[in-house]
Amino acid sequence: MNLPSKVLETAVNELSQFPGIGKKTALRMVIHLMKQPEEAVGSLAKAIINLKTNLQFCSICHNVSEHEHCDICSSINRNKRVICVVKDFQDCISIESTGQYNGTYHVLNGLISPLDGIGPEEINLSTLFLRIDQSETDEVILALSATMEGDTTAFYISKKLKDKSVKVTQISRGISIGGELEFADEITLGRSLLGRVQVG
Amino acid sequence: MNLPSKVLETAVNELSQFPGIGKKTALRMVIHLMKQPEEAVGSLAKAIINLKTNLQFCSICHNVSEHEHCDICSSINRNKRVICVVKDFQDCISIESTGQYNGTYHVLNGLISPLDGIGPEEINLSTLFLRIDQSETDEVILALSATMEGDTTAFYISKKLKDKSVKVTQISRGISIGGELEFADEITLGRSLLGRVQVG
Repeated sequence: MNLPSKVLETAVNELSQFPGIGKKTALRMVIHLMKQPEEAVGSLAKAIINLKTNLQFCSICHNVSEHEHCDICSSINRNKRVICVVKDFQDCISIESTGQYNGTYHVLNGLISPLDGIGPEEINLSTLFLRIDQSETDEVILALSATMEGDTTAFYISKKLKDKSVKVTQISRGISIGGELEFADEITLGRSLLGRVQVG
Repeated sequence: MNLPSKVLETAVNELSQFPGIGKKTALRMVIHLMKQPEEAVGSLAKAIINLKTNLQFCSICHNVSEHEHCDICSSINRNKRVICVVKDFQDCISIESTGQYNGTYHVLNGLISPLDGIGPEEINLSTLFLRIDQSETDEVILALSATMEGDTTAFYISKKLKDKSVKVTQISRGISIGGELEFADEITLGRSLLGRVQVG
């Protein structure tokens, strides 16, 4: 792309470093910015910088936070005796969106994946076991992906917690709500049959 | 979306103001930024601010520029006697990318569109006619879209320049290079037949 100015070129190059954003989309974004008032562009720049300067990870659950302890860990309305184990903070966002959960989280920041050289030490597992040892925990809910890595991590955690007096559960798997049987993949449908629950 | 922090929420809201970028994509962008080193995020923010503080429009051709005159207008290697009229500076970028043009530009910053209330006074036309009057111009190339607005603008310009000693040309229209006839739309193909040129 032959851009008429170095300033424009730098902005396009910077914006095209986002995943899934190419030079053409970056140029469209730059043109959009050029049409905005100066304050709007300034507040965007400030919001971006704040991400690095004002965000940290909660020292209890490793969720993103503006303080040492995140809003969930420091809330008096959340049930501290239940810990939901998730892969990353995006999964916290998804679960919070359901409005069905009132406990706390533990963000692993990854899953055990021997093929990628990620062992139990590489993710936030030691702090999870420490939490369970040091505070009274009734239940650990494993909300991990239904993938090889998710299952490996879930298996590792449940094995480690076997001798402790804590209940370990896993979110249910099966066909999607509102999903037609004919569109469900065979493996999901098969597992869903095996994992059938009594209703009457 | 229930984001765990106000900083995160502000950044997602700011980024989702770009055209075509929703909350989910904005969140992906934010997560990408959080993984970058502080300098990288700082240089992105700086590049965005520079767009508003260091960019202006060339006083001759209205192309975006860092100085009063853009690089093309101030270059001694460009033919100042040829002016290519385009809708916006993105079209300059497209034409520059072809590597086939060595003249100057005139950026209209819009097209005549009576339906949208855009008349000849609303776009950079008076400065075009002034340029042609004040400097020696051999040729004005109309590189406008093959739309109603583009054709209206082209017709207006060519009518205004009819009595002047300047050659007015228009970029050719027809089937795309490498394009199969069967995939060309009927109107393009029809026009392409009417506009046939002698080859032997």
